[in-house]
Amino acid sequence: MPEAPFVPVIPAGGAGTRLWPLSRRAHPKFLLDLTGSGRSLLQQTLARLAPLTDRAPIIVTGVEHAEAVTSQAEGLVGPRARVLAEPSPRDSMPAIALAAALVEREEPEAVIGSFAADHLIGDEEAFVRAVTTARRTAELGYLVTLGVTPTRPATGFGYIEQGTGAQSTAGAAGGAPGTATAAAGDGGSGATALDAVGARPVARFVEKPDRDRAEQFLAAGTFSWNAGIFVARARVLLDELAAQIPSLARGVRAIAAAHGTARYQEVLERIWPQLTRIAIDHALAEPLAAAGRVALVPADFAWDDIGDFAALARQLRASPPVGSAGAAEPNGDVAGGDVQVLGTADVGAVSSTATVYGSRDRPIALVGLEGISIVDTEDVLLVLADDRAQDLSRLVAGLDGTGHGHLR
Amino acid sequence: MPEAPFVPVIPAGGAGTRLWPLSRRAHPKFLLDLTGSGRSLLQQTLARLAPLTDRAPIIVTGVEHAEAVTSQAEGLVGPRARVLAEPSPRDSMPAIALAAALVEREEPEAVIGSFAADHLIGDEEAFVRAVTTARRTAELGYLVTLGVTPTRPATGFGYIEQGTGAQSTAGAAGGAPGTATAAAGDGGSGATALDAVGARPVARFVEKPDRDRAEQFLAAGTFSWNAGIFVARARVLLDELAAQIPSLARGVRAIAAAHGTARYQEVLERIWPQLTRIAIDHALAEPLAAAGRVALVPADFAWDDIGDFAALARQLRASPPVGSAGAAEPNGDVAGGDVQVLGTADVGAVSSTATVYGSRDRPIALVGLEGISIVDTEDVLLVLADDRAQDLSRLVAGLDGTGHGHLR
Repeated sequence: MPEAPFVPVIPAGGAGTRLWPLSRRAHPKFLLDLTGSGRSLLQQTLARLAPLTDRAPIIVTGVEHAEAVTSQAEGLVGPRARVLAEPSPRDSMPAIALAAALVEREEPEAVIGSFAADHLIGDEEAFVRAVTTARRTAELGYLVTLGVTPTRPATGFGYIEQGTGAQSTAGAAGGAPGTATAAAGDGGSGATALDAVGARPVARFVEKPDRDRAEQFLAAGTFSWNAGIFVARARVLLDELAAQIPSLARGVRAIAAAHGTARYQEVLERIWPQLTRIAIDHALAEPLAAAGRVALVPADFAWDDIGDFAALARQLRASPPVGSAGAAEPNGDVAGGDVQVLGTADVGAVSSTATVYGSRDRPIALVGLEGISIVDTEDVLLVLADDRAQDLSRLVAGLDGTGHGHLR
Repeated sequence: MPEAPFVPVIPAGGAGTRLWPLSRRAHPKFLLDLTGSGRSLLQQTLARLAPLTDRAPIIVTGVEHAEAVTSQAEGLVGPRARVLAEPSPRDSMPAIALAAALVEREEPEAVIGSFAADHLIGDEEAFVRAVTTARRTAELGYLVTLGVTPTRPATGFGYIEQGTGAQSTAGAAGGAPGTATAAAGDGGSGATALDAVGARPVARFVEKPDRDRAEQFLAAGTFSWNAGIFVARARVLLDELAAQIPSLARGVRAIAAAHGTARYQEVLERIWPQLTRIAIDHALAEPLAAAGRVALVPADFAWDDIGDFAALARQLRASPPVGSAGAAEPNGDVAGGDVQVLGTADVGAVSSTATVYGSRDRPIALVGLEGISIVDTEDVLLVLADDRAQDLSRLVAGLDGTGHGHLR
């Protein structure tokens, strides 16, 4: 079993424009119960982490969502979450680093694990097993990521390529100067140590591929989906960050030093806007992988980032929400499988060819549709071809300019 | 110029299920302003007929719509319409025959013209010219129909084939016994008389063809669209009907005889349910055409029966309604031609690829759609592939059986 304390970190940001108008600026994706589970994605994330630790999770979110996040986190099993409010969005690295700096100050040897607030994971026991392995691997001084075994040539996810043992050892042996607790400092062969805990070296992170490359990745067998989960000792993460972007590590450590004091808000608001706006993938994962200091724990659970309506439809079709009128009683007698009168469910009603999301108690009739999503909300109606998520993002980006900014 | 008085007759019935949920049992198609003209289809029909006559038009409608019809007919130019309420729907022949019987009683030599309450006609002057020719032709003793010059191989309309002069003369010479005022009684060659007024003999009426036959009809040049317009002397129409379906002619003449008396309602309610339920096409037009006693007046105006959402979309795209937000200002900057945020107009907003109908003041966002109609009403939302009108009819027919009867 892992020995170091474990603190889950949940950066809860992101506009979720590809799920607009379900997801809005004021009600982002992580606050929504997209799958009819009775809990928001954030609440599902917290519940999934509760069996792993007795430490309070840290949620880092926008100041405008701090109240809603605090409210949703209340009443769940486990220690009450701590909510850090970002004065402005700076992407994931500053958020995770600030949480790491707080943890480092309180428990220097603790391991943190960063988990997206708005992903779905199918097998929670497999998740706990994989994170437990990642914690043991992190105690060896690695930045650790979970690599989800791909089940199809998805083009909407990033990929992680596993390295060979030899590459890894070479990389670990060349540890960057100034990173006292890096894997290279573990003594002996990094690859052997990784083998012992059930982890693998990472060769590189790959951005979302096109279809051809995705097929190659799937066939190769050495690529995993990047689920955006990172596990590391708080001090390792910050020392590595100090080597890559010194001002960022220095900044979050200064904010953490003021935490709990009267100066905190002043320090936060002064330093935060100066922090580099960057994702953890670019700030740490990619450069450290090139240096052989990132480890991968294979994860065999179903996972989805529900990045767009096509993904959500796939998810809902696989496991229709309870109370989904369309899924429960498609009115197939009327005129064949794709002609239905659907009662509107709280979350979504699923037919074989179209997906309906509605907050209204009003029937919806669908005739002759394929691969379409319909979002029926109080103030706007969206009808979307599922394969046009990119165009939806552009439409949402253009709302302000067309006098529809209040709909964002 | 025609000499006989002219009385327009407007049978205003028909469920319009292929335009549900715009068209409902309680608010059928003819009461709706589908094209954003500011007037309902019925009102447009009345206005179109006003220049033709100083006689009051007769509207025959269901008892449940008599009040709405009367209200819509008020305040228009011309004599105030007379509204006859049918106790139950019996299709078009009893409705037209009852109006004919009323006219026959009041002005035996008058000509009536029957016009659908819910069609669109583009060029009103051409319409007036064609009807004027039809009136002159009807004074010769013919049942006269307007034949609209086809502009495409439509499969949603019936067709009329023109006969040759020789056929027509032969037919007219063989006039059915008992039809004292039939064309055969006109003296001399029917074809010559038709030529003189600018009409043609009709060889036959053809039901909606498939695509191949429609192409052949268009290429042949001797086929017209059947716009459902029939013009005849009231007495001719009833005498011809008496030869085909004696009980029907006898029934409507008995009802007309009671009109204006205290017995009228009792007589109507006793006789009406016994009348044969049949369309004028089957009752008169087809058998009389076979006998050479139907004449056709070529009509060169744009015409549409707006039978389904595909037809309505075609119409709106050709002439977008004033105040249609989508048509006026497609938000093409956002993400290309088929991605738009449309303000909902009273009637419909049109994009290049989808048509939106809404009664709500709520924006509608469309992404990546082609050939789709969206109807956003207070109590039901329809999203329809335009080419699936038949499936829509089946869906509407099934509403009662699925507990959604209140939506019809």
